[in-house]
Formats: sequence, C-alpha cells, structure tokens
Amino acid sequence: MNRPEKIPVAILGATGSVGQRFVQLLDDHPWFRVVALTSSERSVGKLYRDACHWVLSEPMPAWARDMQLIPSDPAGLDVPLAFSAMPSRQAREVEASLAAAGILVCSNASAFRRESDVPIVLPEVNPDHILLVKEQRRRRGWRGGIVTNANCTSTGMTVALKALDDAFGVKRVFAVSLQALSGAGYPGVASLDIVDNVIPYIADEEEKVEWEPRKILGRRDGESIHLSEMVISAHTNRVAVIDGHTVCLSIELERRAAPGEAVEVLRGFNAPLESRDLPSSPRPVIQVSEEADRPQPRLDCMAGGGMTTVVGRVRSDEIFDLRIVVLSHNTIRGAAGGSIYNAELLVRSGMLG
Amino acid sequence: MNRPEKIPVAILGATGSVGQRFVQLLDDHPWFRVVALTSSERSVGKLYRDACHWVLSEPMPAWARDMQLIPSDPAGLDVPLAFSAMPSRQAREVEASLAAAGILVCSNASAFRRESDVPIVLPEVNPDHILLVKEQRRRRGWRGGIVTNANCTSTGMTVALKALDDAFGVKRVFAVSLQALSGAGYPGVASLDIVDNVIPYIADEEEKVEWEPRKILGRRDGESIHLSEMVISAHTNRVAVIDGHTVCLSIELERRAAPGEAVEVLRGFNAPLESRDLPSSPRPVIQVSEEADRPQPRLDCMAGGGMTTVVGRVRSDEIFDLRIVVLSHNTIRGAAGGSIYNAELLVRSGMLG
Amino acid sequence: MNRPEKIPVAILGATGSVGQRFVQLLDDHPWFRVVALTSSERSVGKLYRDACHWVLSEPMPAWARDMQLIPSDPAGLDVPLAFSAMPSRQAREVEASLAAAGILVCSNASAFRRESDVPIVLPEVNPDHILLVKEQRRRRGWRGGIVTNANCTSTGMTVALKALDDAFGVKRVFAVSLQALSGAGYPGVASLDIVDNVIPYIADEEEKVEWEPRKILGRRDGESIHLSEMVISAHTNRVAVIDGHTVCLSIELERRAAPGEAVEVLRGFNAPLESRDLPSSPRPVIQVSEEADRPQPRLDCMAGGGMTTVVGRVRSDEIFDLRIVVLSHNTIRGAAGGSIYNAELLVRSGMLG
Amino acid sequence: MNRPEKIPVAILGATGSVGQRFVQLLDDHPWFRVVALTSSERSVGKLYRDACHWVLSEPMPAWARDMQLIPSDPAGLDVPLAFSAMPSRQAREVEASLAAAGILVCSNASAFRRESDVPIVLPEVNPDHILLVKEQRRRRGWRGGIVTNANCTSTGMTVALKALDDAFGVKRVFAVSLQALSGAGYPGVASLDIVDNVIPYIADEEEKVEWEPRKILGRRDGESIHLSEMVISAHTNRVAVIDGHTVCLSIELERRAAPGEAVEVLRGFNAPLESRDLPSSPRPVIQVSEEADRPQPRLDCMAGGGMTTVVGRVRSDEIFDLRIVVLSHNTIRGAAGGSIYNAELLVRSGMLG
Repeated sequence: MNRPEKIPVAILGATGSVGQRFVQLLDDHPWFRVVALTSSERSVGKLYRDACHWVLSEPMPAWARDMQLIPSDPAGLDVPLAFSAMPSRQAREVEASLAAAGILVCSNASAFRRESDVPIVLPEVNPDHILLVKEQRRRRGWRGGIVTNANCTSTGMTVALKALDDAFGVKRVFAVSLQALSGAGYPGVASLDIVDNVIPYIADEEEKVEWEPRKILGRRDGESIHLSEMVISAHTNRVAVIDGHTVCLSIELERRAAPGEAVEVLRGFNAPLESRDLPSSPRPVIQVSEEADRPQPRLDCMAGGGMTTVVGRVRSDEIFDLRIVVLSHNTIRGAAGGSIYNAELLVRSGMLG
Repeated sequence: MNRPEKIPVAILGATGSVGQRFVQLLDDHPWFRVVALTSSERSVGKLYRDACHWVLSEPMPAWARDMQLIPSDPAGLDVPLAFSAMPSRQAREVEASLAAAGILVCSNASAFRRESDVPIVLPEVNPDHILLVKEQRRRRGWRGGIVTNANCTSTGMTVALKALDDAFGVKRVFAVSLQALSGAGYPGVASLDIVDNVIPYIADEEEKVEWEPRKILGRRDGESIHLSEMVISAHTNRVAVIDGHTVCLSIELERRAAPGEAVEVLRGFNAPLESRDLPSSPRPVIQVSEEADRPQPRLDCMAGGGMTTVVGRVRSDEIFDLRIVVLSHNTIRGAAGGSIYNAELLVRSGMLG
Repeated sequence: MNRPEKIPVAILGATGSVGQRFVQLLDDHPWFRVVALTSSERSVGKLYRDACHWVLSEPMPAWARDMQLIPSDPAGLDVPLAFSAMPSRQAREVEASLAAAGILVCSNASAFRRESDVPIVLPEVNPDHILLVKEQRRRRGWRGGIVTNANCTSTGMTVALKALDDAFGVKRVFAVSLQALSGAGYPGVASLDIVDNVIPYIADEEEKVEWEPRKILGRRDGESIHLSEMVISAHTNRVAVIDGHTVCLSIELERRAAPGEAVEVLRGFNAPLESRDLPSSPRPVIQVSEEADRPQPRLDCMAGGGMTTVVGRVRSDEIFDLRIVVLSHNTIRGAAGGSIYNAELLVRSGMLG
Repeated sequence: MNRPEKIPVAILGATGSVGQRFVQLLDDHPWFRVVALTSSERSVGKLYRDACHWVLSEPMPAWARDMQLIPSDPAGLDVPLAFSAMPSRQAREVEASLAAAGILVCSNASAFRRESDVPIVLPEVNPDHILLVKEQRRRRGWRGGIVTNANCTSTGMTVALKALDDAFGVKRVFAVSLQALSGAGYPGVASLDIVDNVIPYIADEEEKVEWEPRKILGRRDGESIHLSEMVISAHTNRVAVIDGHTVCLSIELERRAAPGEAVEVLRGFNAPLESRDLPSSPRPVIQVSEEADRPQPRLDCMAGGGMTTVVGRVRSDEIFDLRIVVLSHNTIRGAAGGSIYNAELLVRSGMLG
C-alpha cells in the first residue's frame, strides 16, 4: 500500500489516555492515516497539543500536535473507519450515530459489548465473530457497524484460556487481577490512593471479567453467539504500576493436563490464518516465561510490541488443575492496539467499504 | 505487675526488620522487659544502634540504642522467655538449644512449624494448641519449649476462616495475596524489582499458605493435632506496599450463607476467654469494612494497633460461596506482635516457669 | 480545663486533606471542641462520613462521622474560633466575613498572607506577630481577625533559618524542595504523573517559599512588619512521598560558622516562653539527625508528633557557608497542626474573647 | 562497515545494571560486535542468562543469553576495545592491566577520573581531551589507554553548563539532584528505603558532582587539563524513579542573560564536528521543554534514544542569574551510552589501532 492510498481514519476521544495510545500506535501505521481527532465539547477547536495532557513516554507524534480537535459527530467525519476511546456513557449515542452513517467503529468502550449483535473480538481468538456486523446492518439498518474489543483485564486471560480450552476444555476459572494505573485513564487514580497502597476494588470490573470471556469464547451460530459455559469468578485490584495488567488464574479443565503439557499448548498456540499476519498481530501470540518470578509488568508488558500475551508460573493447583499468571499490556493489547488489530482484520476480511 | 517484676526476655535476631518490630512493640510492655538482644556473629559486640539499620517510622527506643548485641547462645541468656526473629536456617539449631536449656521460645521462624509436637498458635483461634509444649518436653526432653506463630500471609486469612468455619464450615479456599515489602526483611526486595512493578512469586510462600491454616484450624487430640480437611490453593505476589498483606479469598462453605450472614459472623467473632484480655489481644479481633474499596493496606493495617484482622468486600462468588478481602499487618499481627501475643498466652496459662 | 468548658471551634473546608488533618488532630484536644464542620455547597447537608473521602491512616474520629456539614457562613457559626482549610479562592471572602463577625480565624489558606496587617505566624519563631490582629480590628473594623500559618514548604525551613539567623545572621539561601503528595490535597496529583516520576514544578510555590520566610522572620514595629533582608532562591519539586516535605538548603551567613557550631545552635534552639508549653508545641523544636542519610520523610516526619522540624546533613558549602537538609510534616506542622498551634498561642495570649 | 568487519569488543562487569545496558545498547551496534562478557570470579563459567538478574524492560539480546562469562583478565581478551562497568575498586587494577596490554578501555568507573592524564570525556563537550591517551602511553608505558565518562549526575548538567559557559561564562552553580534507582546498581537501593520516601544522601556523589564538571570543562593545554574555575555546590538525593536523573541548577553568569537568550543558546548548542555524526550522537544534543512542568524522568528520559540532555524551566534566579532543570538518562547518556559514544569518538579519531 502506498502512503497516499492509506485509509483515512478518525480517533474519537483522542485526548484521554487510551486516545493517546491510538495516536501513538497509529503514528506511521502501514494501512491507516489519522485525519481527524475528536474530543468532548470543552476541547473542540483547540489544538491537540494544547488540549491533551500527554502521559506516554513516547513523544507526541508531530502530525498530531497541530491537529484541531473536532466534535464526535458523523457530519464532520469523512472516514470509513473510526477508533473509539470514548467514555462508555457518550460512546452509546455517538458510536451508534457513526455506525448508522456508514462508519465502521472499532471501539474500546464497553457500551455495546453486551448487545447480542455486537461482537467482542480478539482476532487471535474469535475472528469470525466480526460477521455479526452483517446482523447489525440487517437488524439496525446501519450502513457501518461496531466491533468492540474486550475489557483490558479480560483480554490477556481470554487469549490464554482459548489456548487451554481448545486443548483440554476449560470448565471453571478463578481470576484475581493486579491492574495498572493507565487502565483508569487520566487523571484516574489519585496518587494519595495508590502510593504505598493497593485498592481491592475497581467499579464494574469483576462483572466484565466474569462475562466477556464467555462471549469471546462463545460459538458463533450464523449471526448469533452462544456464550461459553465456562464459569469465572473474579477479584480485581488496582496496584501502583503504570502499564500492564497481571492476572492470577486457577483453572479447572475437562481433561487433566500436566503443567508441561499446558506450557506446550500455550507456546504452540497460533492465531487463525486470517488474523495471523496483520500489521498488529502479536508475535508470538503467547510467550511463556521460564523464570520462576515472571511475568512482571515492568519487564514484560512490552513483549511483542505490547501485543503479546505473556504467561508464566504454569503449575498445578491444589483444587483445580492449573495455576498460571497472565500479563497483558492494558492500553496496547487490552485497548488501543486491540482495536487497531480488529480494524486490520475488518480490512483484511473485506468488511470495509 | 510492677516494673521491677517484669519478666526478663531476649530478642533473638534483633537487628532485622522483624527483630526491630519486637524491639518497638516491647517498648514499655506491661509484662516483659527486654534484657538481651542477640545477633549473628558479625554484629556481636556492637551497640544495637550501630549494628541496626532501623527501618520503622517509630523511633528506636532509648533503652535499645546502647544495648550490646550478644550471641544467640543459651549460655549467655538468663531469661525464661525469648522471642525469635531469626532466619529459619539458623533458627532450627538455636531455638532447639534454647528450648533444651529451659527457655520458652516464641518464634516467628518457620523452622519448627511442620513438627508434629510444635504448635502454630494464633491465640484468638487455637489457644489450646499451646499444650503441645508438654509433648515437646516429654518427647524431646526439653525443659522449655517452642511455640511458633504463623507465616504472615496465613495469619489474617486464618483468623477470618476460623470465624466462617465455626459458623458455616469451610471446605475449599482460593487465596491470592498482594504482600508488603516488610515481609521480605531488610534489605529484602530490591527497589529496581518493585517500583512500577509486581513480582508474582515469593519463594516457598504458597506451600505455607496452603498448609499452615490447616494445622492452626486442626483439632487437638491430647498432644497431637489432626489437620483440618480444608483445601487451599494459593497464589502469592509482592507489591510496592511497605506494611500490610492483602489476601483475596473465594470460599466454599458446607452450609450456604448469604454475604450478610457472613458479615454478622465475622463482626461477632471473639477470641476464646483465655486469649481475650491479654495486653496484645486485638480489639476487635475482626473489623469489617463497609466501604466498597476497603480494606487498603495504607489506611487499614494499623487497625487495633496492627493486631486486628480487617475484612471487606464480603460478597457472593460465582463458583464458590463467598468472596472476601482480608488485610493483616504482616510485621505486627503476622510476626512480632503475634509472637508477643503467644507469649502472653503462655504466661496467662501458667506455662512459663 | 474541664471537658464541658472546652472552647467550641469550627473547621472550614473540613472534607479536604488538610480539613481531615484538622479533624484528626482536634480529636480529644485538651482546649478545643469541634462543634461545626463546613464544606462547599455541594456537600452541605451530608454527613461527614458520606461526603469525605478519608485519606489518613488514623481512623476518622467517631464524633466526626455523623456531623452534618454546614455552609461556611458566619450566620450559622456560633464559635469564637475557626480553623480554615479552605481553598484560597473561597477563603478570601469567607474568612473576611467571619473575622468581621467576631470570629478569630486560624487559616491555612494563602489568601491573606500578603496583607500587611495579617501575620504569618510560627509560634516558635515569631509569636509577637499575632499582635497584628489588633491592627486588623482597627483598620478593617473586624471584631475577630485572621492569623495565617506559612505555606507547608516555608514552614520547616523558616524554623531552621530562625535558629541560624539568631546566632549567625542569614544573608542568602538556596532552597530546593522535594514535596509530598498530601501537600497537593485530594485528589491532587494524578498517580500517572508521579509513580516512577518527579514533577519539577508546583504552581505558585516558589514565590511563596521565597517571600513568606522574609515576612515571618521580619521585625515587628508596632503593628507593621519590616520584611527580613534575607534573599531566597527556590526550586520546588513533587515526589512520590505521602507525607513530609524535604528541603535542601545552602545558606550564606553574616558570620562564618563551622557545621559543629550550627548543630549546637540548632539543637539548642527553643521557642520563646509564650509558645513553649502549649499543647501543640514541638518537643523538641528542632531535632538534629546524626546519621549521614537522614532526615527521611517516611522515617522522620512524625518526630514530635509531626510538629518537630528535623534537620540533618549539616555540612559546609562550596559557595555559601552551610548546607543542611530540613524535613517537616507538611499537613501537621506545615498546615493543620500549625494552625492549631497558632490558636493555642492566641488563647494563651488572651486574644480570644 | 560490513558486519564481519565490526570491531570486536568486550564488556567488563557485564552482569550488573550498567553492564546490562552495555549489552542492550551494543545489540546490533553498527561498528562494534561483543565477543566477550566478563564477570567477577563467582560467576565465571556461567552462561550470561544464568548469572545475570536482568532488570531492563528491553529483552536480553539472543546472542548474549548463551555467552559464557570469562574473567576480566587481559590474557583471555583478544579485543582492541573494552567497555568497563566494573565497580571502582576492582576497576583500578583491571583497567590498568588491560590498558597496559594494549586495550583501549572506555570506562564508566570512577577509579581513574581524578588522574591527571586520564580524561573524562563527553564527546559533545570536550572531544579533544581524548588526546590525553597519548600522555598515558608516554608516562605509563601503556599500549592501550583509558577514557572515562563522567558520573551519571555530572553528565547532563555539564552538557547544559557547557552551552551556557560558551555563551555567557558560568561562574558559580548550585546543583540539587533527584536521582534514579538504576544509578545505584542492582540490588542497590532496598525497596524499604525508598518506597514512600526520599534518601537525601548518596555516598561520595556530591564530591564528584562538584569536581568532574570542572575537569570536563577545563582547557586542554598539550597533554594536561587546566580545571575550570567554575565553583559548584551540590546536594544529591535518591528518589523512587527507575531511570533518569533530574538536577535543579541555579547559575551565576559572567554576563547577564535573560531566560529567553539562554533558551536560544541551549537550543542552538551543537556538538563539535568530530563528535556530531557518530552512531550514538545525541539528536538533538539539548532539547528544551516548553511546558511549565517538564522535564520529567518518566516522560522525557528517552529523548534522543536516551542520549539527549533535556532542559526545562529556564527562568531567572533571585540570587544568581538563571534557574534551570536538567534531565539525563543515567544509565544511557550518563553511563553505558556515554562510554559507547566515547569509543565511537576514539574510532573516528583514529586512536584505535
């Protein structure tokens, strides 16, 4: 693809912490070119560099600095594809209006994840779920559509569970997360609440972690999804880490498997053909740590450019079958990078235009 | 008790982080007076203030500053009672030699916890287990004895499980810890390993957390303990918190109980009569947080002077029956304070001299 | 003083982080009894426990939990004395209206610090400056008055500079601060901005640190203050510390002094008679650390109950005469505790009613 | 240069935190190829991956994982160039023996920095000082030589001072550092000492910061250096930051300069021709931040790949002329990257073989 032929895209809610990740990851993307950044009314009309409190250690791309923020309104958006980093409350209305107007929205918001005709897609897990977009068009009369990615905590663990489920069948899962600060946006968590501290609560998070993997791992039957029978119990915690969600899992399998077999299965897991060689495909999909004390967020969350799911401490469990620790970059694989990966899958699948 | 009649005690391994807690908590103790501080050979002969890198925010007591460190050898210890903060490797030999020589050792080391005639005692849970000291004397010919307290992570969760076990019967437990830095001693965890990070591994910790509660909650039959049938699966993690271990628990009960019933039972839990009114008794034994986002280590670990077990987020579980979060001060209730509480129980029970 | 005869006081802006410190420090105060807590309109009518996100590790006093928040309006405040933790913008109007209505306001806000007839008082340094309240009454027709305490960063360094100024004369000072998070209030500094980071900027802070010590150390001439000739250059930084501001000082003296002499002077410094034995008087006023690596905020900020100024690393300077490091608890000595100390001085001096 | 013709180099003390940085930065270096990694006796014979506790977030290069550690002994080192990350104590003897044996040692150790014939080189500041190597050969009979880079804290501030000194003349400087944890090596600073804390002391650091810039900025006269007359007073502090030293400077100039002029001079500063286009040359040499609250270590220390000196908050000073804040990556520009830059300068200058 030549540069002039890149697909023009918009980023909705570009000033927040996930919006910034979209800007950073789409810098020099081989297929997409950002032509519009939107924001809430308060910032419309400002330059991106003035409206945005940049929190990433990578510098703000030069092209973004002087872009003027516009409203999240289909009237002003002449793009076939938009990435949404909007707060869920606003996302509901805005994303629907864009989808109606013919735009494919790859959304990080949770607003539509529970809708039966809106898929939650992790391309290395359930790429075929994107076909639900056709059902959206039929049912809702939309000309575009919405594809969501999972909650950041659900993401990594679902990738690992997919590999184990395919090989051994997964029945029940205990999941306890230690989540990074960037997952709460900016300003997000107050420093007085988290320095020298843990917060054992994240609003609405446990419900998402218990339900979303069941949809992602569900079986598509035409244009509907049968939820997986897997049962998940989750505790979610916030810790003083910038990036990278760590999740401790105890897993009950249908067929017993020794830790060594599980390691082999995790290492050997590959994405389906259609999602394997996209620009954002994780390489490898799953990395298994050998060291006793890994994965660690500071050291491992950038594996595969932040798209790889890192698994470690694969061992047996006193009650269920396996214990593992999963690490995933929450604003890359678990948010902006995941949405971009979804968009690439849509392009590859011919769903775009 | 008048000051001159206080019981003279020694602190073994007084310069480490748990040793320092013993020094701080025994400052002005109503029953005990510290007359000896011991250390490894390297520091013997030095003044405490010179040999000790003090890491507590409470100042070093004046009486301790100028005490000269002596060897951990019964020959030089003219005390009926000693508190041990020794590394487990050295504790094995030293504690046995002191016990043989007639000293009652209240130990924070893990060296003897697995011995069938050495109890792990939490006075609010299993005060009668101290009677195993008689078995030690009979079987080993010791004139003193050894009473251990539990691993710091096992402590708080065992207190909470005791309350629930008494009321509803506890069958199986998933436990995931977020542990404080002071639990690793000094220098302990390197700052480069934990700032902006989580370490999902603590050597030998999961085995302790899975086994110790079963012994503490076991039934004493004469001078032996029948392990509880409870099954525990543990993941242990280190986080950037100074003091206070947080543990997320999912609990399977024999008899179903609603969260409200569990709260009532936890709030109403009291220590047995013999351990209820000791100087170090936690007041209350269990504090139940009402706020959605508590307990938090920085805010709650000093409840009851660091001796109270704080429980929060009592809610139902998707797989088992209950989910709760338990917080306990790891160097007070979970280490030095626990040993002192044990010593008080020994004195009250007439086991001392 | 008997409990029923305690002076009734109000706390203005009681829900913020400094307001919480007032509540905590006034719990069981020997002279004062809190009868009113005020807040911004948004919280008026709510119970304190519901409106307040408590951030202190000491528990919320029982008496405060169920107090209903009222407006910061003299009409509803039947007290002779009020403590202000209001934001400076609102403080300007509210404090003046209370002072006009006959209330003595001990304020932590900066709103009036630059007024020539409003003193900035540190009782161990310039207790006589409280006499400016008489000038306020004459000039403004107030029946009450306003006494401010210094900015939290100015406080500790001014105490240390006072001791050195009295003994050797202080001409010029370089001051670089490393300031705690609690100084920015709640929610204050976002965790994404400070974990694994330093912010080398605090709005309006350097101007305060350069000017306030000159007023506090100024000479009172009747009812006006002649600013000290001392020149101060300040850099202010935010670091990931909960409580305790650290300030590095290089000091030029009128008369040369060896570090040993400075240590002697600092150790020997005492408060004037009128402020020496008040309930909140720091004991000692200045504590000099001997260890090479102290003071440290986590270990030393609670010296003297958080009221003592801790000085360490007293050594010579390559350019000026002395280098020292000063530590002071920013929400106790540098905020709420300082205001309470001022109020005690007012009571002792007969300025109250 | 073709890959097979790359210059073979050794890394001395390769397992420590600076050694790891050498390994990481030399991965795929266009001119150098690492053929030997040395370590202390304890690790000799082990594979690098087994002996090294890797603390960088970049993964360990594949070629390093299986290299066997050898002693730091000229007998086994068949290279013309070695990078030293050795502790200063061992560096003294080892580096001299290598230099005698014909190896050019680019050293991060402080062992030889005070020797009159050993230069401290920052190529963007004083590239001509490398000629002192000739004096070493003459005076000491070495066939190789030693070139050191500056202490990590001295580095960034010296680059900024050079620009200002050239333009306005710098007379006196107050410098207060906030230094990162990686500067103390591994395990280095204990987490209990720095979480929620500041340590206002770093052993021997202030002396280095006060003296090294004077040598680097000194005038070379034949084979000797006349120290700059500049006087520096330093306070050094450790803070809870992984990478990036922040230094607050107050600067007295010979000729007054407004902040705007200083910004222009800093922005316009370029390296001398001989050090401008080397593989590790910082691009730009100095980056000036416009935002009020920058530079910040987490956001800015990777500017120019970690080689750029970032300056911000350029403003006037109450006592001297200018206040600025300087940030420099302490293990890249201030350690391993600086040594590599020196080696590139040696190669370019024909000093190597």
